[in-house]
Amino acid sequence: MADIEFVSDSEVAFVKVAGSDLTVVQAAVVSTGLNAEEWSAERVNGLINRLMKDRHGAPFEHVTFTFMVKTPLFTARQMMRHRIASFNEASARYRILPAVFYVPPSHRPLVQNGKAMDYDFQVDEKLSAIAKVLIEQSSKSSYKTYEQLLDAGIAREVARMVLPANMMTEFMVTINLRSLFNIFSLRGENTGTYPSHPQFEIVQVASRMEEAAADAVPISYEAFVQQGRVQP
Amino acid sequence: MADIEFVSDSEVAFVKVAGSDLTVVQAAVVSTGLNAEEWSAERVNGLINRLMKDRHGAPFEHVTFTFMVKTPLFTARQMMRHRIASFNEASARYRILPAVFYVPPSHRPLVQNGKAMDYDFQVDEKLSAIAKVLIEQSSKSSYKTYEQLLDAGIAREVARMVLPANMMTEFMVTINLRSLFNIFSLRGENTGTYPSHPQFEIVQVASRMEEAAADAVPISYEAFVQQGRVQP
Amino acid sequence: MADIEFVSDSEVAFVKVAGSDLTVVQAAVVSTGLNAEEWSAERVNGLINRLMKDRHGAPFEHVTFTFMVKTPLFTARQMMRHRIASFNEASARYRILPAVFYVPPSHRPLVQNGKAMDYDFQVDEKLSAIAKVLIEQSSKSSYKTYEQLLDAGIAREVARMVLPANMMTEFMVTINLRSLFNIFSLRGENTGTYPSHPQFEIVQVASRMEEAAADAVPISYEAFVQQGRVQP
Amino acid sequence: MADIEFVSDSEVAFVKVAGSDLTVVQAAVVSTGLNAEEWSAERVNGLINRLMKDRHGAPFEHVTFTFMVKTPLFTARQMMRHRIASFNEASARYRILPAVFYVPPSHRPLVQNGKAMDYDFQVDEKLSAIAKVLIEQSSKSSYKTYEQLLDAGIAREVARMVLPANMMTEFMVTINLRSLFNIFSLRGENTGTYPSHPQFEIVQVASRMEEAAADAVPISYEAFVQQGRVQP
Repeated sequence: MADIEFVSDSEVAFVKVAGSDLTVVQAAVVSTGLNAEEWSAERVNGLINRLMKDRHGAPFEHVTFTFMVKTPLFTARQMMRHRIASFNEASARYRILPAVFYVPPSHRPLVQNGKAMDYDFQVDEKLSAIAKVLIEQSSKSSYKTYEQLLDAGIAREVARMVLPANMMTEFMVTINLRSLFNIFSLRGENTGTYPSHPQFEIVQVASRMEEAAADAVPISYEAFVQQGRVQP
Repeated sequence: MADIEFVSDSEVAFVKVAGSDLTVVQAAVVSTGLNAEEWSAERVNGLINRLMKDRHGAPFEHVTFTFMVKTPLFTARQMMRHRIASFNEASARYRILPAVFYVPPSHRPLVQNGKAMDYDFQVDEKLSAIAKVLIEQSSKSSYKTYEQLLDAGIAREVARMVLPANMMTEFMVTINLRSLFNIFSLRGENTGTYPSHPQFEIVQVASRMEEAAADAVPISYEAFVQQGRVQP
Repeated sequence: MADIEFVSDSEVAFVKVAGSDLTVVQAAVVSTGLNAEEWSAERVNGLINRLMKDRHGAPFEHVTFTFMVKTPLFTARQMMRHRIASFNEASARYRILPAVFYVPPSHRPLVQNGKAMDYDFQVDEKLSAIAKVLIEQSSKSSYKTYEQLLDAGIAREVARMVLPANMMTEFMVTINLRSLFNIFSLRGENTGTYPSHPQFEIVQVASRMEEAAADAVPISYEAFVQQGRVQP
Repeated sequence: MADIEFVSDSEVAFVKVAGSDLTVVQAAVVSTGLNAEEWSAERVNGLINRLMKDRHGAPFEHVTFTFMVKTPLFTARQMMRHRIASFNEASARYRILPAVFYVPPSHRPLVQNGKAMDYDFQVDEKLSAIAKVLIEQSSKSSYKTYEQLLDAGIAREVARMVLPANMMTEFMVTINLRSLFNIFSLRGENTGTYPSHPQFEIVQVASRMEEAAADAVPISYEAFVQQGRVQP
């Protein structure tokens, strides 16, 4: 039987970005006919903030990012609910998925307080320890069955039916900056105008994408934060 | 522990359709300015076939279908890769998923012949029986752990990490006819101009949607088949 | 030469709606597994407001509207910048466009006050009268040339090159409620959280669509207004 | 009055591309788990052709192109009917459009032969000369009225109503390779599996985009042509 690996985090590798804050400006001035080539930083900043405030989102679409993400299946599913993006994911029809599973870290809040649609979560180290043991056992057992099915000669696309939601998967995603703001708004830590309630694990993924955006398009990113974290 | 139920098929319940073959015609004649109200069946038929052949797809978008689908998680994931559609799915963050799992029926081909990207599958009843036993055991074991986690007071969104890909889920999908043709082309039984290689389980879902379409928009559906099953 | 007709408004004919406020609720409870069939009006109202506030937009996508719109070309262009919608428009390649043109009504504000990106418009009846005369003359002249080109045997798709932006066109649009909220937010009269600056003529179109939505899905529409007119 | 300029062609300036044929391969092997880094040109070629043939379109989405296009309004409108793309266009609300108009070149076929939906066009130099005179006169006259309206103090967004469909506009477009194949299929010269009937002027634009694609992603482009020019 394969060695089982457990991880407690997702990975987001930055692959490429096409465009910059200047691309946003160049797209915007097509509308107005201005020449932005020698604009001061202040003027660039002013225009981008104005676009964000007035929700002129189109100029942000001309900047595109590509990431490689390693994350559990349940997080991948949440990410792929975003339709303005391009995904290619590991296929359990075509490949044997390696024995890597996600277990929540001990600082992950996992006790729910409050009623439906109005609750938060608390950390509980004792319960985390119990969860860790049960999830690891179950993951091992499922993977063992997966191997038995494969060894018996059963097709991958059938054998994979026993693999659980904490199985690690990977995908490449290409997404434009406007759509990325939507992810930050709904899947990142958002205490802005319209607070969101994303799951702990997808916040980890979104936050790393935010770091990449803050680095590649600092003015646009800052304007997004300033204007209440609502997608323009 | 909850009783575990096993099913070997998906369910597709037709909820509503807005529009008909006539809607397609009415949309198309906006372009040409003709009045289609008293057209003969032959003329309606001729126009719709022409739209399909010339890949004038827009008129087919004005007909929208809504379905409720019960299917295993892995099939739901494949369906939700189609981005021109609207989905609402059972959330394991908000509800406790009932103990219903998918096991492949004995006539489901599960032995792969041939090499990667160029293979087919064969039925093997003996292997099906083995698969059934292993998948059922693994499902039961996973669900038992799920209940243990919930009983310990761990949040639903964490407990569900152990649930496998053959867990049954349900979703509502609203989709226009043009996009539905794309599903039929890629996820249905397609031996047309561009054959596809969908998984057995999603063919079951797509085929039921095809039946609903054949019933609601018979002329458009027939034109789709006649013109090689490529989405217009 | 054809008689030239001038109009000072757009028409929005409601064609069909599929779904209602209840559809929104039924889509939402797929997530939670609740049965909403016997819910009180108050509970329905509460859920829909909550969806809007938390920007759970997906349930609103299962309601789809179809309209027939008659409006000048420049307004049609603005409307077709919305990509989550289905359009079929009169084609000047296939039909001879009838001699109907838009002229702004005298109450249409047409004097710009303030600088770029920060201005409003004022009504000026004297200038409106001048505009009316000039626009009508120019429209007549353009249409006369259009007819001359057609009479000479030149193809429609070439002859139409002389037709101006105030030429009336018509299109069928099918659009879901979530996407319609985006139109209301950006093209309707919006003094909410993120004010928009749409052109007078598209506000007329959007407002009529708003009336249809307020009629067909009153609870969802009211929640949209209450929550600041931002698309969920 | 401004000098009027007449042009008989569109311009497509290549701005940037993110990705290459290798990006397509890297996206595709995420599914299969293979390492493509040291693949031979033959193997890369084989995979890309296979993706195209089987209509696995997703890997082509990770390559994005940006163009600046100068073209008449009627062509811009046709291009913007493609919804899987990002556009920023010159706005006649915010800027005064320069006096540049399109007139068809003399080799542009402009006499229609055959009936609706089943015709072609023929060159007729005498008629082209007539068209040129009439279109130029009408353009000049419209632009003169535009200037009169502006000079009278009427807002740009109102004055522009008299501007004709052959007015030159410009837009920035960012679009992924998969969606670009759709444009090539429907708007380029297509005598493949599903012939299309695009207008002469948009073929000029699409053809230049095709040249850019053939240069940037030669293997993917060649596979598209080989497999019948249907978007994967």
